[in-house]
Amino acid sequence: MHAISFIQDLAVIMLVAGVVTVLCHRFRQPVVLGYIVAGFIIGPHTPPFGLIHDEETIKILAELGVIFLMFFLGLEFSLRKLASVGSTAFLAAFMEIVLMVWLGYEIGRFFGWTHMDAIFLGAILAMSSTTIIVKALGDLKMKHERFAQQIFGVLIVEDILGIGIIALLSGIAVSGTVEAGEVAGTVGRLTLFMIVALVIGILLVPRLLAYVARFQSSEMLLITVLGLCFGFCLLVAKLQYSMVLGAFLMGAIMAESRQLPQIERLVEPVRDLFSAIFFVAIGLTIDPSILLEHPWPILVITGAVILGKMISCGTGAFLAGNDGRTSLRVGMGLSQIGEFSFIIAALGTTLGVTSDFLYPIVVAVSAITTLSTPYQIRAADPLSRYLARVMPTRVARVFSHYGDWLRSIQPQGQSAVLAKMIRRILLQIGINFALVVAIFLGSAWFADSLALRLDPWVGQENLQKALIWGGALLVSLPFLIAAYRKLKALSLLLAEMSVSPDQAGRHTARVRRIVAEVIPLLSLGGIVLLLMPLSASILPTLELLVVIGLLAAGVSALLWRWLIRVHSRMQIALMETLDRPEPPSH
Amino acid sequence: MHAISFIQDLAVIMLVAGVVTVLCHRFRQPVVLGYIVAGFIIGPHTPPFGLIHDEETIKILAELGVIFLMFFLGLEFSLRKLASVGSTAFLAAFMEIVLMVWLGYEIGRFFGWTHMDAIFLGAILAMSSTTIIVKALGDLKMKHERFAQQIFGVLIVEDILGIGIIALLSGIAVSGTVEAGEVAGTVGRLTLFMIVALVIGILLVPRLLAYVARFQSSEMLLITVLGLCFGFCLLVAKLQYSMVLGAFLMGAIMAESRQLPQIERLVEPVRDLFSAIFFVAIGLTIDPSILLEHPWPILVITGAVILGKMISCGTGAFLAGNDGRTSLRVGMGLSQIGEFSFIIAALGTTLGVTSDFLYPIVVAVSAITTLSTPYQIRAADPLSRYLARVMPTRVARVFSHYGDWLRSIQPQGQSAVLAKMIRRILLQIGINFALVVAIFLGSAWFADSLALRLDPWVGQENLQKALIWGGALLVSLPFLIAAYRKLKALSLLLAEMSVSPDQAGRHTARVRRIVAEVIPLLSLGGIVLLLMPLSASILPTLELLVVIGLLAAGVSALLWRWLIRVHSRMQIALMETLDRPEPPSH
Repeated sequence: MHAISFIQDLAVIMLVAGVVTVLCHRFRQPVVLGYIVAGFIIGPHTPPFGLIHDEETIKILAELGVIFLMFFLGLEFSLRKLASVGSTAFLAAFMEIVLMVWLGYEIGRFFGWTHMDAIFLGAILAMSSTTIIVKALGDLKMKHERFAQQIFGVLIVEDILGIGIIALLSGIAVSGTVEAGEVAGTVGRLTLFMIVALVIGILLVPRLLAYVARFQSSEMLLITVLGLCFGFCLLVAKLQYSMVLGAFLMGAIMAESRQLPQIERLVEPVRDLFSAIFFVAIGLTIDPSILLEHPWPILVITGAVILGKMISCGTGAFLAGNDGRTSLRVGMGLSQIGEFSFIIAALGTTLGVTSDFLYPIVVAVSAITTLSTPYQIRAADPLSRYLARVMPTRVARVFSHYGDWLRSIQPQGQSAVLAKMIRRILLQIGINFALVVAIFLGSAWFADSLALRLDPWVGQENLQKALIWGGALLVSLPFLIAAYRKLKALSLLLAEMSVSPDQAGRHTARVRRIVAEVIPLLSLGGIVLLLMPLSASILPTLELLVVIGLLAAGVSALLWRWLIRVHSRMQIALMETLDRPEPPSH
Repeated sequence: MHAISFIQDLAVIMLVAGVVTVLCHRFRQPVVLGYIVAGFIIGPHTPPFGLIHDEETIKILAELGVIFLMFFLGLEFSLRKLASVGSTAFLAAFMEIVLMVWLGYEIGRFFGWTHMDAIFLGAILAMSSTTIIVKALGDLKMKHERFAQQIFGVLIVEDILGIGIIALLSGIAVSGTVEAGEVAGTVGRLTLFMIVALVIGILLVPRLLAYVARFQSSEMLLITVLGLCFGFCLLVAKLQYSMVLGAFLMGAIMAESRQLPQIERLVEPVRDLFSAIFFVAIGLTIDPSILLEHPWPILVITGAVILGKMISCGTGAFLAGNDGRTSLRVGMGLSQIGEFSFIIAALGTTLGVTSDFLYPIVVAVSAITTLSTPYQIRAADPLSRYLARVMPTRVARVFSHYGDWLRSIQPQGQSAVLAKMIRRILLQIGINFALVVAIFLGSAWFADSLALRLDPWVGQENLQKALIWGGALLVSLPFLIAAYRKLKALSLLLAEMSVSPDQAGRHTARVRRIVAEVIPLLSLGGIVLLLMPLSASILPTLELLVVIGLLAAGVSALLWRWLIRVHSRMQIALMETLDRPEPPSH
């Protein structure tokens, strides 16, 4: 019977995983390592051979494991957390990813690997492992120290950049080329998609979950959550992105729901079950002979991970204004690779673009760096003392001057408040423009089927296009008007600041008013010009465009207040979800 | 990609199931019904056709759903609960199962179905549905009334009898015959296996779980629990029983662990996920044309379920001493079929012994009786009033006399205490004898491989047998001695009660001593004689048996105290687990 062999596989996986993880716990190693070792033991390359019969089904469940891992990562991620991480996180994560992708690529090319293997190696080395760091810091009882908080910030930024890298890799793997223009296009579309998905998701999903939660049935809540998660993964897959991205985004959306603690409690056992299968499945694929064939890549890559991450993250942390000791601790804490690397390596295998030896090498490097992480964290203090001792005084003075200078340029008092205000307005303008762009791109996407519907009513192709384009403009009006108003507020602020009475004399007021009126109109004109090429396929003739523009102006003038109200209602709904008080910690 | 189509299946299942269950909740129907309807909608027989691509994988996951359902049923079952249910539960459950199996079989034969279809129909109709009853009583706010407590007792007894029926059906399906001797043998072996599994399991598993729980990692606990559950299912499957039995037994064993609340919390979401898939998979198989072809069986079986269960359970409850109104409420509350019936129907399909039309018919009957359950419960009161009015006075008087008579023969005061003591001693003797029998059967089972091991040392076959038989006897000694001592205590008690000074006069003391010595020795002789045929394959010659007997007597005499201590230590360990205070309800 088929089911029996499958249950036998599961039984073997769970039993061996259970025993090995108990041993791992005894020797204070992360559970993940235990799972991989368990998979290695029951795998086909070590005696007793072939304890797993139905590797195909196990692999499908392992893919579910990836989805649940990323979904849970999304649940633990949160836009609020992202907004509150400091400059350290952004700078360190950015430097780490840029340096490590480059380093990984160069190492791959040095060993004569294919172009694609080298690119994937770069991406694999880019991200550190949350699981391993949390475990190591917990064991060392350092979770609440300042550098640990900085590390967690870096990990949050890494999550979102890592998601971008996964989406990029899928695109590169399909097209086979890495052209700057294409990469920029992919990043742009991805950013747009994420913003739109987050805005719409945060508007709808928490309300839906609140409705289902009213039935007081954890079973129904779980089924709804999983349905939304899988459904969104499917939608994302249809848009040619990786399902991993969908799982993460849906997790991030649900992180803004009031039911978050309950959802986490329900999803955690399911994630534990499937992620165990995922990590065991990784162990299953390890062939020791491959490891023995590639000792040098393993050693070189391990060294690159430890040194490269230490230097890039440490420098990033230092540039963001931390002292040398904290910077070094941040850098050395982040020096390993883990689950994110496995997910990227698995992506390469699934897409069939990477070589067989890449996965085992990555696992080996991860195992070594996992084992070394606690020692690295403990070695940071002695190392920083040693460096301080041997460093020439002049260099040390430059470093300390840098810190002083950085603190001196930080906006203080009123200008800090102003800077925060400007940032907020810019964010709102950006989101509104992104939505407008998404509406036009969406219209262009569905233009053919829309035109088909319009055919019986409007025969002429040009008129069809005009209707579609005009409709998109109509739907965009609330966002355009909101963007215009925000731009006006921003311009007033800038005019106030830049046009001082000393320069403009008695014309001050007039100059300010001109600046405040001109900038928003110019920007709106810019966005409309940008929309033209984006919606090229549905762009009607110029005369029709003028007619549409006049009509839109008329509608705007007539419904100005109503359009503003519609937008502000949406904005309030969004803000209500985002600004709710923190759920009680459990 | 294979994984995408699988995730698509999951997404469709979860999304449709989510929507339909929300609707079910709105109309106060059990979620199970919603799942089945959802499966029906996305199934291949209703438009839009074929939303599911990979039915094979879904079916494997559905089998996991059955295992998790039964495992959770085991977790909620508990030996303590079984010990505390009253005579109502035993009588009503027994009468229900006997009547319904017979009725189902006769109905099947009446419609000209095959022998095996009719047997399975009987088994399918035997058990009521815990899910549906709990839901209906909860909706009617009657969960805490006396008749509801009686119903829950019946359901607990049904669980254990249902497990027996499943094991029997597997045996019957494989052998193809229903002979009284074989059925008795199967029941005997099954009972033996369950006792041994429970004793050994309760000795080992809670200790293991307590050890793992010390690591404070819910992930490790979950993996261990699932490993034990699947591993035991596998063992049970190797012994030719159904895996469902293994899942239930492992659940019942873990129900005695201190980690029960935590285990339930962890396993519940996993069960919800897979049981949803199981019920949706049931809906997938429904072909409406089959239902339209068999309207009469559906109607007749529905009537048989409602009337048969009402009469059998009601009569059982009445015979056990309940008043007419409570009996009727018990009977009408239990009048439906549900998840247990699906599991048995699925067993028939998996084993390939039942016809295609059986499953959809069972689902239809279950759906109708599910919908009618709340009305039945509400109708019980008016019906009992109506019956009381139209019943001839003489019949009513007979009924009321029966109740009086039953109360008059209940043991009271001292004799009630005595009866309880005797029951307890008999239970202990039974368990010890069961363990002894299991040791000998186990030795006979492993005799061949043991003999192979002994070959280099002891060439003669007869001596090998003697060694194996003697070894089994040696291992059994603690249990035999314990049984002997309990028998002696029982005989003393019986002697005290039966040999009164009026009859035996001045010989009283001597007669009592003789009775107290003779009964245990006779019983022990009986068990040894019983062991002879059971261990026939490893029975040595008579001379060797005498030698072994003398040796065993010598060992017993020498190590008497030590053997008693070994046994009592095991007993204390078992009792400690069983007698721990109730976990705080959550």
